[in-house]
Amino acid sequence: MKIALDAMGGDFAPKAVVEGALLAAPQLHHDILLVGDPAAIATHLPKPTPGNISIHPASEVIEMHEKPVEALRKKKDSSIVVGVDLVAQKEAAVFVSAGNTGACTAGSLLKWRQMAGFHRPAIATEFPNLHGRFVLLDAGASPDIEPEQLVEFALMGRAYAKQVMGRKDPKVHLLNMGEEEGKGNAFAKQAYVLLQKYPWFAGNIEGKDMFGEPTDVVVCDAFVGNIVLKTAEGVAETILKMIRAQIPTGPKKLLFAPLKGVMKPVREQMDYAEYGGMPLLGLNGLTLICHGRSNPRAIMNALLNAQKAIDTDLLAAIMAAIQESKE
Amino acid sequence: MKIALDAMGGDFAPKAVVEGALLAAPQLHHDILLVGDPAAIATHLPKPTPGNISIHPASEVIEMHEKPVEALRKKKDSSIVVGVDLVAQKEAAVFVSAGNTGACTAGSLLKWRQMAGFHRPAIATEFPNLHGRFVLLDAGASPDIEPEQLVEFALMGRAYAKQVMGRKDPKVHLLNMGEEEGKGNAFAKQAYVLLQKYPWFAGNIEGKDMFGEPTDVVVCDAFVGNIVLKTAEGVAETILKMIRAQIPTGPKKLLFAPLKGVMKPVREQMDYAEYGGMPLLGLNGLTLICHGRSNPRAIMNALLNAQKAIDTDLLAAIMAAIQESKE
Repeated sequence: MKIALDAMGGDFAPKAVVEGALLAAPQLHHDILLVGDPAAIATHLPKPTPGNISIHPASEVIEMHEKPVEALRKKKDSSIVVGVDLVAQKEAAVFVSAGNTGACTAGSLLKWRQMAGFHRPAIATEFPNLHGRFVLLDAGASPDIEPEQLVEFALMGRAYAKQVMGRKDPKVHLLNMGEEEGKGNAFAKQAYVLLQKYPWFAGNIEGKDMFGEPTDVVVCDAFVGNIVLKTAEGVAETILKMIRAQIPTGPKKLLFAPLKGVMKPVREQMDYAEYGGMPLLGLNGLTLICHGRSNPRAIMNALLNAQKAIDTDLLAAIMAAIQESKE
Repeated sequence: MKIALDAMGGDFAPKAVVEGALLAAPQLHHDILLVGDPAAIATHLPKPTPGNISIHPASEVIEMHEKPVEALRKKKDSSIVVGVDLVAQKEAAVFVSAGNTGACTAGSLLKWRQMAGFHRPAIATEFPNLHGRFVLLDAGASPDIEPEQLVEFALMGRAYAKQVMGRKDPKVHLLNMGEEEGKGNAFAKQAYVLLQKYPWFAGNIEGKDMFGEPTDVVVCDAFVGNIVLKTAEGVAETILKMIRAQIPTGPKKLLFAPLKGVMKPVREQMDYAEYGGMPLLGLNGLTLICHGRSNPRAIMNALLNAQKAIDTDLLAAIMAAIQESKE
């Protein structure tokens, strides 16, 4: 199978993207199609190039600040449009991009359409907590939804937790401003009623407890999910910077050398830029959306995630989930 | 002036509350009324008791898990009902409680009603960031609101930032899932249109940037605000625990002794339990809501904040803000 990788997307493209592909190539039994400007890509490729990396030309680039739908219409030969097309034409199994998130989402939706039974796509994102990881969706694709869509997000999230995270019988929590039944705004209260029909529903969870307790899947709308993602990122960065600011300069600094070893693994766990691609779920195709600041390691992680999604047939599992829920 | 302090509210009441009052007393030029069971309170008071601390009896306690409105109706002599009444009867200027948040909010609203021009109360909460602090509201009082209420929250928040935080001309940001105009869900888009009529409106801000950039006031609905508060708390706790887990045990531990000095000030800055009371704004009276886990320092901080709110006449400033906005 082939993975279409947007070589022009992200703050450090094409260099960081191509380097990420080179890091991933030896670990992949799939092929990477670097989509973008052949000359710009080639300068970062060694000769000979690894056998599972090739270039698929695209002459245009959608910039990070461009308005998604407008840009998609104007730039038909952009790396995002071409990458999404490769999946639509079954030439690639997954599209991976660190480019304009809105354009990736809109492009994937417009070209592939929703999977039968799903009404809105959702971005799933993994968070570290004290017990490992949990997946939260929607982290930014569909801001104005009905409570019914949270049930769809729950089904997608469960399929993701099973296939990609290896959870046996994942539980789903509803993100809410209180733990007890009956808490929340009107939207959350309605969603609770719909979700409680399912045996895998584990009730409400507060923003704090999803980081402190063993958690599999958390559902919320895209507005709330995006605020969670960005708040977590902001707080993590702030704390790490505050700690760094406490370390004295000058000869005393030496005393704090052991700190480095302590901070490094924590920083790595908390670096959302290294997370390796958030899957856009609910469509007839799979896009992994990477952070704009993605470094080569982040791109490598995204490609490894793409491989896992292909090998475990994530899309088929999501399709099966909606069928089962209706039986 | 007198500050009514709910001696029975919080996980460690009455001990932690009374100890907090004792820490604050020498720093206050106002009096503290400890509201609750006289016998239970008295066991934690030294003799002689500081001159500005006295007991105001209340025979019942609303527990943390009780349903607010029901509990308020049943327990007319609870410390929360009595404390709120003391403010209504002008016997106290502020009510401070670490008890059941819903009961404090509902009790204050039912007894004092909204201030003219304001339709819904909001809980304001301060967050540390890399440049100091910012205040976010609503952190949990009014989950289902109209976009118009975000303008009211902005006016309250500005008054709070001026009076209590000492900001000269505080700017207000709208918490949103993107920075550019036109981003967000329908609610945020409508709020943006209403807010942009005001010279102090500084546009959208993302969850990450409010922690990284100089920020005064951030507005959002209570659902989103509560999720921000709890997510920030959860991420901060998780990181600090992850760092602690990295420190080896045994003799090697000594190497990490300097780490303590580094972590302590960061932990203190990030400990939302020590924040000293979140004001419930928009009513004809002022309640400071403390974290259920409040320790004596947190109670002391809340009492000092109550003093600041009295001395700077926060309520009058909020009333003036709505008048000015209509001129």
